[in-house]
Amino acid sequence: MSVSAVPQYFKGFAVSSSENWNKPKLVEYERKQIQPHDVVIKNVACGLCGSDLHTLREQWMPMQRKELVVGHEIVGHVMAVGDKVTQFKVGQRVGVGAASASCKDCVRCKNNNEHYCKKQVLTYNSHDEKTGYVTQGGYSSHSIADEDFVFPIPDKMDFTVAGPLMCAGLTVFSPLIRNLGEDATGKTVGIIGIGGLGHLAIQFANALGAKVVTFSRSSSKKEQALSMGADSFVATGEEEGWNTKYEDSFDLMLNCASGVDGLNLSDYLDVLKVDANFVSVGLPPAKDSFQLSPISFLGNGGSFGSSFLGSKKEAMKMLEIAAEKGVKPWIEEIDISEENCHEALTRCHNGDVRYRFVFTGFDKAFGN
Amino acid sequence: MSVSAVPQYFKGFAVSSSENWNKPKLVEYERKQIQPHDVVIKNVACGLCGSDLHTLREQWMPMQRKELVVGHEIVGHVMAVGDKVTQFKVGQRVGVGAASASCKDCVRCKNNNEHYCKKQVLTYNSHDEKTGYVTQGGYSSHSIADEDFVFPIPDKMDFTVAGPLMCAGLTVFSPLIRNLGEDATGKTVGIIGIGGLGHLAIQFANALGAKVVTFSRSSSKKEQALSMGADSFVATGEEEGWNTKYEDSFDLMLNCASGVDGLNLSDYLDVLKVDANFVSVGLPPAKDSFQLSPISFLGNGGSFGSSFLGSKKEAMKMLEIAAEKGVKPWIEEIDISEENCHEALTRCHNGDVRYRFVFTGFDKAFGN
Repeated sequence: MSVSAVPQYFKGFAVSSSENWNKPKLVEYERKQIQPHDVVIKNVACGLCGSDLHTLREQWMPMQRKELVVGHEIVGHVMAVGDKVTQFKVGQRVGVGAASASCKDCVRCKNNNEHYCKKQVLTYNSHDEKTGYVTQGGYSSHSIADEDFVFPIPDKMDFTVAGPLMCAGLTVFSPLIRNLGEDATGKTVGIIGIGGLGHLAIQFANALGAKVVTFSRSSSKKEQALSMGADSFVATGEEEGWNTKYEDSFDLMLNCASGVDGLNLSDYLDVLKVDANFVSVGLPPAKDSFQLSPISFLGNGGSFGSSFLGSKKEAMKMLEIAAEKGVKPWIEEIDISEENCHEALTRCHNGDVRYRFVFTGFDKAFGN
Repeated sequence: MSVSAVPQYFKGFAVSSSENWNKPKLVEYERKQIQPHDVVIKNVACGLCGSDLHTLREQWMPMQRKELVVGHEIVGHVMAVGDKVTQFKVGQRVGVGAASASCKDCVRCKNNNEHYCKKQVLTYNSHDEKTGYVTQGGYSSHSIADEDFVFPIPDKMDFTVAGPLMCAGLTVFSPLIRNLGEDATGKTVGIIGIGGLGHLAIQFANALGAKVVTFSRSSSKKEQALSMGADSFVATGEEEGWNTKYEDSFDLMLNCASGVDGLNLSDYLDVLKVDANFVSVGLPPAKDSFQLSPISFLGNGGSFGSSFLGSKKEAMKMLEIAAEKGVKPWIEEIDISEENCHEALTRCHNGDVRYRFVFTGFDKAFGN
């Protein structure tokens, strides 16, 4: 299809206020103006990410639209491409994560850090300065993203597997390879929190060759964690003195839990090897924070930080490894509809999913 | 001199309670039992470090002795060596920093991270498990340290120059080379706080080839900072919007300020390059801390941490560079005595020194 034949209006499930965060309604909205490097995607599936909840409940920032469509684990087929697109052809199977455009011109964009571009446009609820558009997410019929933020999906990978890799997968994969390298043999990684992010982090850390220790408050997810590739499991609420046992053990501690409550940061900082990092990819609400003294890091010169998404280069490597090593999100597939958006958002909020919802049935909801 | 001829009692200026933190008295105390790897030093000079104040005022931990002698920027001549010492001979010019022994056997000790050994013994106010001794610092006639914590001083370097390098110099040098490498050409470092640590950090960062931006609240130290090798100077209290100007600029932000008040951490985190670190070497009192949200790091994937001292390998490299490039602490030399300890501690507490006191005149105070 040529760009000019792309419909002017897309359909999606939108929320109009934070009070109604779990009551999306089917709406139509005008699409973004297609740019020369843009790829237009007919959506086939979309994962439900914790960010969708934080955004709809306005825990990070206010909603920038009256009718906001979230969703940034988007997969589908290329439907049309802008006239400068070189990386994709119509019909190709592709995905888009949490970011969809950047300036393409800064030091970061030119050095595989385009996801940290200061002019980056997020996939939803984000002002695109070039077009004035406020972006809409993937609980919708179509998506539009710059080709540098579109990832080709390996032939043998199901759309529903690829969906959660677009955000959750890339978010955990990037700090893993930035801190451990592509071959993590002989290294030990701690993964805190076994949920949408953590269950993928365990698998990717294992796929990279690292020894994986998972941390959860109770032992309820122990068997699952071990089956995902964890070498050992610590129930922090049940095992006193675990941090003494693991002294000087970790090359990386990856925090995949989304809250700060009950997470005794100093225990985790104490068990780092020299110069190792504690990296948080689970994001608490903006008002919550940790209390940190420089003294907490004196035992090993470690540090505390975060990581945001990953680059396209990293996404390609992640998809290659996932296909090769069989890394797969544990998903619950659900047809997209007002009722099911309500159910999935509510259940995800309650922690009642093992471990990721993926919306499918887009043709039925939006028509061909 | 043979080890057996080393006097059983040393002399030093000791403080008996935190209320009398600035009133050291001349005392005699029994020395540590000399171990096979120990080097006995006849002290010639000792720098006054901020840690001395924190310790005597019990801001980090209680004093472990009734009469505590501080001081861990010690320089002098080797007077005797234990029978397994291979690195030093009697008469050699040497120095000791803030740590004086470790287990010599763990992964950290064997990989040039002996200063992070879990069994490390600090130079003063520290329990040495092997001997049961509580260590005494360098405001004293003699010092004893394991040879792995004793650093040979280059021939052409004055004792008074070497003194402050033992702790302050090494403390800033280690994070500089760990984060930037030995050749920092093309990299940019921010140094926060121009004092005992900061004035050496500026010089070492410059010596490594980095571009140096210094940060201070007012512009009162601007000319001094530039003369030390800073390329530019930011008076954070006087220049609004400085962080916008320096967006995406820093490969390392080294915090040499000792308090958390008035230090707007997020401004400094915002200007880091991707994956760069904010490292604190200035240590606030244990009760003070920063409020940190993982969200603060999302703009660049940066991190916040600390660094503690440096390895012997790094100390040797530091001394080599200092001798070669003329890095020198700015010092005020003062004869060691009860009166002068009082004056120097009091003035240092009031920030009234540019930038480091070094006690000399040890022969006069303690006899030959």
